[in-house]
Amino acid sequence: MTAFMTKDFLLSNDTAKVLYHQYAADCPIVDYHCHVSPKEIYEDRRFENITQVWLGGDHYKWRIMRSNGVEERYITGDASDREKFQKFAEALPRAIGNPMYHWCHLELKTYFGYEGILNGDTAEEVWQLAAKKLQQPEMSVRGLIAQSNVAFVGTTDDPIDSLEWHEKLAADKTMKTVIAPSFRPDKALNIDKAGWLTYIRTLSVVAGVDIVDLATLKEALGRRIKFFNEHGCKASDHGLDRTVYRPASEDEVNTVIAKGLNGEAVTADEADALKTALLLFCAAEYRRYGWVMQLHYNCLRNNNTAMFNRLGPDTGFDCIGPYNGSAALAQLLDALDQNDQLPRTILYSLDPNDNEFIGTLIGCFQSSECAGKLQHGSGWWFNDNKTGMQEQMTSLANLGLLGNFVGMLTDSRSFLSYTRHEYFRRILCDLIGRWVENGEYPADMTVLGGLVRDICNRNAVRYFRLEE
Amino acid sequence: MTAFMTKDFLLSNDTAKVLYHQYAADCPIVDYHCHVSPKEIYEDRRFENITQVWLGGDHYKWRIMRSNGVEERYITGDASDREKFQKFAEALPRAIGNPMYHWCHLELKTYFGYEGILNGDTAEEVWQLAAKKLQQPEMSVRGLIAQSNVAFVGTTDDPIDSLEWHEKLAADKTMKTVIAPSFRPDKALNIDKAGWLTYIRTLSVVAGVDIVDLATLKEALGRRIKFFNEHGCKASDHGLDRTVYRPASEDEVNTVIAKGLNGEAVTADEADALKTALLLFCAAEYRRYGWVMQLHYNCLRNNNTAMFNRLGPDTGFDCIGPYNGSAALAQLLDALDQNDQLPRTILYSLDPNDNEFIGTLIGCFQSSECAGKLQHGSGWWFNDNKTGMQEQMTSLANLGLLGNFVGMLTDSRSFLSYTRHEYFRRILCDLIGRWVENGEYPADMTVLGGLVRDICNRNAVRYFRLEE
Amino acid sequence: MTAFMTKDFLLSNDTAKVLYHQYAADCPIVDYHCHVSPKEIYEDRRFENITQVWLGGDHYKWRIMRSNGVEERYITGDASDREKFQKFAEALPRAIGNPMYHWCHLELKTYFGYEGILNGDTAEEVWQLAAKKLQQPEMSVRGLIAQSNVAFVGTTDDPIDSLEWHEKLAADKTMKTVIAPSFRPDKALNIDKAGWLTYIRTLSVVAGVDIVDLATLKEALGRRIKFFNEHGCKASDHGLDRTVYRPASEDEVNTVIAKGLNGEAVTADEADALKTALLLFCAAEYRRYGWVMQLHYNCLRNNNTAMFNRLGPDTGFDCIGPYNGSAALAQLLDALDQNDQLPRTILYSLDPNDNEFIGTLIGCFQSSECAGKLQHGSGWWFNDNKTGMQEQMTSLANLGLLGNFVGMLTDSRSFLSYTRHEYFRRILCDLIGRWVENGEYPADMTVLGGLVRDICNRNAVRYFRLEE
Repeated sequence: MTAFMTKDFLLSNDTAKVLYHQYAADCPIVDYHCHVSPKEIYEDRRFENITQVWLGGDHYKWRIMRSNGVEERYITGDASDREKFQKFAEALPRAIGNPMYHWCHLELKTYFGYEGILNGDTAEEVWQLAAKKLQQPEMSVRGLIAQSNVAFVGTTDDPIDSLEWHEKLAADKTMKTVIAPSFRPDKALNIDKAGWLTYIRTLSVVAGVDIVDLATLKEALGRRIKFFNEHGCKASDHGLDRTVYRPASEDEVNTVIAKGLNGEAVTADEADALKTALLLFCAAEYRRYGWVMQLHYNCLRNNNTAMFNRLGPDTGFDCIGPYNGSAALAQLLDALDQNDQLPRTILYSLDPNDNEFIGTLIGCFQSSECAGKLQHGSGWWFNDNKTGMQEQMTSLANLGLLGNFVGMLTDSRSFLSYTRHEYFRRILCDLIGRWVENGEYPADMTVLGGLVRDICNRNAVRYFRLEE
Repeated sequence: MTAFMTKDFLLSNDTAKVLYHQYAADCPIVDYHCHVSPKEIYEDRRFENITQVWLGGDHYKWRIMRSNGVEERYITGDASDREKFQKFAEALPRAIGNPMYHWCHLELKTYFGYEGILNGDTAEEVWQLAAKKLQQPEMSVRGLIAQSNVAFVGTTDDPIDSLEWHEKLAADKTMKTVIAPSFRPDKALNIDKAGWLTYIRTLSVVAGVDIVDLATLKEALGRRIKFFNEHGCKASDHGLDRTVYRPASEDEVNTVIAKGLNGEAVTADEADALKTALLLFCAAEYRRYGWVMQLHYNCLRNNNTAMFNRLGPDTGFDCIGPYNGSAALAQLLDALDQNDQLPRTILYSLDPNDNEFIGTLIGCFQSSECAGKLQHGSGWWFNDNKTGMQEQMTSLANLGLLGNFVGMLTDSRSFLSYTRHEYFRRILCDLIGRWVENGEYPADMTVLGGLVRDICNRNAVRYFRLEE
Repeated sequence: MTAFMTKDFLLSNDTAKVLYHQYAADCPIVDYHCHVSPKEIYEDRRFENITQVWLGGDHYKWRIMRSNGVEERYITGDASDREKFQKFAEALPRAIGNPMYHWCHLELKTYFGYEGILNGDTAEEVWQLAAKKLQQPEMSVRGLIAQSNVAFVGTTDDPIDSLEWHEKLAADKTMKTVIAPSFRPDKALNIDKAGWLTYIRTLSVVAGVDIVDLATLKEALGRRIKFFNEHGCKASDHGLDRTVYRPASEDEVNTVIAKGLNGEAVTADEADALKTALLLFCAAEYRRYGWVMQLHYNCLRNNNTAMFNRLGPDTGFDCIGPYNGSAALAQLLDALDQNDQLPRTILYSLDPNDNEFIGTLIGCFQSSECAGKLQHGSGWWFNDNKTGMQEQMTSLANLGLLGNFVGMLTDSRSFLSYTRHEYFRRILCDLIGRWVENGEYPADMTVLGGLVRDICNRNAVRYFRLEE
């Protein structure tokens, strides 16, 4: 029996313990994909209480509360911060086996020094402890980043963003961590969703291009990609509900765009034609600048219309969207590769059933440009748990080279989430340790330690060209 | 090395042993979904030999025999009961790793006191032992229910059923266990299957409504729902080959019904329109009465036409039917939710690949009506085994609150199947015990024991409103 | 801690060790499906260096190298054999968790007596050792087969093949191992792929039938099946990208064939009609001769067009092709079964998500012709690893009778791959051993040893009628 969350948490064998403590733990974090606010970093935001920093925008925690029958006013409504924290603390013990149980206690331990168990009875003592702790200087946003040993943060930014906070951060010599924008042009592609026309008008203004057809839309996006590149951008990100590949002539796509500009509805097929054209264009641009392309897919968003109308998107009402888009994704990569325009690419599906498909697809487009040019992204969102990470890494190891994996990212909105890298590293070391102790790989700690450091840090540094 | 099926069967760690023996084992069984006969319960049926009680209608066992090349006459044909038992006993040792191996030996041990291993050589001794044992009073149907500590049995009943046996059971003061009907209106929805028109005519008579269109069909079903509610019904059940959501106007649906009433074939799309309309109507009614709605889906039935023609449905020729109906299911729940008509709902897919989709979908419709309003149903049918249950519970724990799970049901036609609750409880305690012993949850036995009792009994009592 | 790859490699418990060493290890190998060359066997080919025997046609190893960023000239290009071996040796340590790591070291140990670890530093010593060892008589093709204790080899042959090497092998009294052809008529079915017309013209000549319509195409294939049967063929094999069932009248199919013979493109639906007609015909013929039918499906082939144009097919650019063809496969089997024309059939999907579907589908068509008439094929290609094999066998055990499984095949192009049977047997024994030691099956070594020998050898001998 191992006690709850000791220093050897999740490290079930001796090899794992050595690998984690001697090789993984002190690797600087490369958090290459997240959703934190560059403004809050620049302004070094402080938090008054634990609800602000923990429950503010965290729809993972909201789902836990809703699954426990908590009323919405205690989640996103007008209840007090203290009441909200109480409801969450009461729900947490029901979350046995859930990563939230681990994340919460890792964060309480690491950032607040709390060694106990959070539940309804201890909520008050945690609330008081956190309030006191949050007054200390190391608990500001910059303090949290610094104490977490973060070398790089890749935020997620809209093409129309001015990147003013990134500019200020770049000019701030006191900031040791590199904060870089990432380019996420979903709104420009989603001609089938509300708000496209308005967005395109803004993009026209920001890019200084009158968008009237495919050529001008590409020109506008191309200018913004260049602008992002000048501001240190290393990566892009596309959130696709499902993968698409619907090649069409420029004339066809122009007709689709004309409909959109005219405020008319487009068919799914027409939308796919525009999306395909823009994906092909953007990918080629990314490649030109040496960026990494990230594709996130198989997601059903905003399933609960009543709550969408009340709270908007990204509030905890999305789910996995299984979809057989395998052929389309293979064709998209092939079309890019045939024209020598395929950038370094990371594939993430929200559906864990796609692990093996992705693991075998990336093997079809590897090249001598770099080791692991095509990557299977770390367990994403609903898969960001012990099972999900073990399955993603086992699949990747079975079907390719785990040693070349770029590893973990937080994908988080919270500055307390850096412990998820610790969580990942413990699971990685435990997995490798079990293989070694079962006689499946030689117990050469130099080789193993090197692999662990590569996956925890060095592969990402190389892959995202952070030192170039 | 642990000996075969000791008292600590499947309990691989000390925490699991304490949880099972001290908290789980004595929880009364709430078997909220099964297919036993209320008539046999009322009449307190007795069995002459083990073949009658074991092999009579158990298509799980038939599949084992067929997979071993046994001739059909020894399975469903005119061979003697003793011969049939022999063939099954000979096949069983080949079923290493199969839940049938465990279920059989658990049942032999629990109900017949047999501590040996069943195979071709021991078949005679088991046959003799069972014949003797079956003469004892506690081996009647009521005796089996009583000795199994069953608090509640939810049978599966057709809307046209008179519920006469349920009435008699309700009036019988000697019956301690609550036996309630469940409402399963599949035949009214399946306009695309043979027999719909005949069924509708009977439903017209039973409900006292001349069914001529959607309004009258709803009226008839509504009356039967009311009738079932008056007879203690707490739940409904829908067996959908695949999930559907095809909204249509009342006129459209009336046209479809008219075709059906006229004996004409309808298209798949037309059938979906009727099914959607009736699902929406029924769900709203269930909600009105506070019932639980169960949806079972992704099943390919009656694959073997030759055997279907010989033996009919439910004889062991069904299989998992993978189908990407995820969007339809999300839309169906959303449509109900938007009108505040979504009842407490349990989702079961026969395809285990759907686990994670279900786990994330239910999180989109939880509410403050009760903790765990939407449920991911326990490993169903082909998933009712150690692997299937571990995966369903691990997925549920990763993606929601395992602590709010309503737990196990037998889905069985046999009165010896209550040991499947024991099987489930051992697997549950082992899973939780492993987490605890690996340091993933605090070893607080009061909290853990409470969670176990909730999942084994109390959540179901609350969810099905058995004490209201 | 177990050292790397000892004699108890992958055997994590005592029961597993006894089962492997006393029952599994000495079972003759029945390699009923592979891609080795009968000409090389007859001529008893020898190899100059390890690159020839190891890297020559092995696209599994090529993918490892590509995933490590190795330039194509070191993989399939004009680099020297020594340079190619070096690049592979350097990549191998990155393949932690990959079956290639195990296969390589098993082969180095078994055939070359090398007990060390292959990497960039040791490549030279392995190269030298191998060069020396390859001069020894037991390292010719026949020597490798003999020292591997192979009882039967089923090659993969085209209907137009003259089977001259099989004839010579059959006449060679010095050859103890039975080498039999297998019938793989994919090219005759694939009217939607390039080369069909040319192929049909050759088939016409070889079969002595002027192919002008469905009847003559059947006649030609039927003659070749008869010819193969006369040459000891026991099995056929179909590689279907996805499963099909599109029944059509003979007239319809004749129209499709006419288009193909005329050099016109056919639609996907038309191609499916021809494929269905030929699958139904061939299956009935296989049944007539008592052959086994193997269906391999859910594969996306030649994803990388640029590399296809350079290297052709089967060079490492294929991936898993998830596809919901479940209903079609069920219908195909049912159509054959209804006419009493379903042969013994093994189903393999490249998508591991299909495991449970297959496991339940085969249960719908078992019969008294033989135990396990329908089989779930061993983990295929990308699933041929520890995880894949454990999952296939666990699924099979959960849903049917593992005891009747026909077990492993290499599917390999290399004569060093017989160690994959050892790999499989270790994983099998470990899986069974873990069940036994966990109290899930009685520790009766006679019964267990019998099951293991059945799965390793005797079931295949019986199923493929090798002694008839």
